[in-house]
Amino acid sequence: MSSTVTDKVNALAELAVRFGANVQPGQIVGLGSEPGKEELARAIAEAAYRAGAKFVDLSVFDIFLKRARLLHADPETLGYVPPWLGEQLLAAGEARAASISLSGPAAPHALDGIDPELVARDMLPWLPEVMQVINARLLNWTGVPGPTREWAMLVHPQLEPNAALERLWDEVAHVCRLDEADPVAAWQHRFAALTRVASALTDRRFDAIRLHGPGTDLTVGLLPSSRWICACLETVDGITHHPNLPSEEVFTTPDPGRVDGFVTATKPLFTAGTTIAGLRVRFQDGRAVQIDADENVEVLRSLTARDEGAARLGELALVDRDGRIGPLETVFYDTLLDENAASHIALGAALQAGVGDESDHERVNVSRIHIDFMIGSNELDVDGLTAVGEKVPLLRTGTWCI
Amino acid sequence: MSSTVTDKVNALAELAVRFGANVQPGQIVGLGSEPGKEELARAIAEAAYRAGAKFVDLSVFDIFLKRARLLHADPETLGYVPPWLGEQLLAAGEARAASISLSGPAAPHALDGIDPELVARDMLPWLPEVMQVINARLLNWTGVPGPTREWAMLVHPQLEPNAALERLWDEVAHVCRLDEADPVAAWQHRFAALTRVASALTDRRFDAIRLHGPGTDLTVGLLPSSRWICACLETVDGITHHPNLPSEEVFTTPDPGRVDGFVTATKPLFTAGTTIAGLRVRFQDGRAVQIDADENVEVLRSLTARDEGAARLGELALVDRDGRIGPLETVFYDTLLDENAASHIALGAALQAGVGDESDHERVNVSRIHIDFMIGSNELDVDGLTAVGEKVPLLRTGTWCI
Repeated sequence: MSSTVTDKVNALAELAVRFGANVQPGQIVGLGSEPGKEELARAIAEAAYRAGAKFVDLSVFDIFLKRARLLHADPETLGYVPPWLGEQLLAAGEARAASISLSGPAAPHALDGIDPELVARDMLPWLPEVMQVINARLLNWTGVPGPTREWAMLVHPQLEPNAALERLWDEVAHVCRLDEADPVAAWQHRFAALTRVASALTDRRFDAIRLHGPGTDLTVGLLPSSRWICACLETVDGITHHPNLPSEEVFTTPDPGRVDGFVTATKPLFTAGTTIAGLRVRFQDGRAVQIDADENVEVLRSLTARDEGAARLGELALVDRDGRIGPLETVFYDTLLDENAASHIALGAALQAGVGDESDHERVNVSRIHIDFMIGSNELDVDGLTAVGEKVPLLRTGTWCI
Repeated sequence: MSSTVTDKVNALAELAVRFGANVQPGQIVGLGSEPGKEELARAIAEAAYRAGAKFVDLSVFDIFLKRARLLHADPETLGYVPPWLGEQLLAAGEARAASISLSGPAAPHALDGIDPELVARDMLPWLPEVMQVINARLLNWTGVPGPTREWAMLVHPQLEPNAALERLWDEVAHVCRLDEADPVAAWQHRFAALTRVASALTDRRFDAIRLHGPGTDLTVGLLPSSRWICACLETVDGITHHPNLPSEEVFTTPDPGRVDGFVTATKPLFTAGTTIAGLRVRFQDGRAVQIDADENVEVLRSLTARDEGAARLGELALVDRDGRIGPLETVFYDTLLDENAASHIALGAALQAGVGDESDHERVNVSRIHIDFMIGSNELDVDGLTAVGEKVPLLRTGTWCI
């Protein structure tokens, strides 16, 4: 790895530990990685121990083992998960651990050629207990991109592998604001702006949000106490953390029973090891009642049939044009990055942090899946609809109106 | 990786799954690996799923994270282990899982330059629960070598890296009998011979064993029901498995209170990430009372001070000249391979399988460590001593006399 890349690795590790997860002295740090991300994982471990971590607990997910399972295991067993994987996560929550995950498709072609219906049966490394510990706010957690050569070659197929990896690291460094003199200060500035917008949106107590643009006309109902936030959370113990870096969104938890209209994805969706291109979804009374795509539509159809909540919305997120990801016009095939390029919705599990009143906790969507996909662009108009029928412009050409 | 190496990877994977662990349909398979061993780990997962495994549960130990911990964590916390690591192992035992571990120093220089006293404080990836599930015979388990480029460069420093890796794979294939037309049949033949020797040794009910040769004169007392076995075990559910491949030893569990004399190691010992060269140990009334070495003696001194049983013997193993490892005259820096080159003893935890009567279970040595080191050679004479003072030649110039 070149020395300039090594500098970026170390800077991202510091940002993930000190600002993203905000690791506290004496904490255990869960570290979720994949083969090919060793340099960053090791730099994060070192930064975590420097920050006073008691133990860094590495979990490596190898998608080639998943490939072997999908191809050779009894198909009836593909949904099986050893109980200790979830128990370990709950125990980490009990221990008030920190958690850092490295996103991005380490080996994007690993599941090529496998029946999408089979792919959808094995949800790992996702565990249902993830939403449980997140909603209980037990962990100070973050996710940051973890570039690999194979991922870089997917994003920049026109470059030779080493150049592609350097380019991807350049982009990751830029969107993570590592090219600022003080990346943490730059993020504090950005989060302050997003927090102002989120507060203004929450204060208006909109009844619904309408998104209208090329291929999309969707009205998303909000819950009485739907609250707009940005990727700045606090644990039950008062540790502030930033669950995604980079993050450019403000988001809320919608009413899973009131979503109507149609959307056209503005970026390909990479999920469950496959790329779903040209996605179009029609909603009625909260449910995705029709799902079409140019490629691999069966994967999303299977996933949304997993449980009652899988075809309903768990998140509505708005992204303005001041973010650093959209202007790159790069498709990263990684939700963490791509979702912050544009406004988006997510099918499946909702964050309880997106509602203000505990009484609304039981109204938020529950599912074993959570799949974000991008429907935004600078051509997308976003309006807030009040209970009395007023229409308030929120985003025009990617710029906030409130 | 060259195609000839790939063939060896696949053959070793098949041997580990079908003969070593003897994975049964429906089992969970714990798979312990390290960065750099991905090809073999993936081949094992594929072989396991083909054999009917329900789930392959990958654990990756990255010694560079241990390095970061030793260098930067609070030294007082280095003995800490999150409780869920041991609990997971016990749960795997409850689930009657299979287990396959890939041995060999993935990155042999990772702990270079670190204070050996610190190194000895962090025993991971070893867990005290390992002996618990092994003695309860809950898992059908095996360990096989997992070559990496860095390990190969340690073993064959005169070769360039790719050639060194190919050479190491050639040697691993040879000692694992993968170069036989039917490796499983070759192993069955070898284990049959070792089983005959073990039975003959057990039948003689020796009171003690004396090992005598250059730099070594050691008398090891046996327990009333000490039983000689080879690396062929059976779980409580009757699954036959071969815990080490390759394996050329017959071994027993000695009396931890009756070991007297001195030994000189005939191979360097690689443990806790360091190489201990020129090791000499003097025993009195069962305890290692003096430990010297030319290099890194502090590591072993610290390890043997860990608990009461750490300075006592947990294993006595005899290796004849018919094995394939000794004749190579290669130092592998991996206990799995090197211990099968020559007769050896182990400090620390004993296998209960090495005694016949349950009443002797409480007399076997208990410790959090288990460290084998080689004291054998073809120059080592081994005698059995009977209770009435008779001396029975067992090994001369590496050949069995019984």
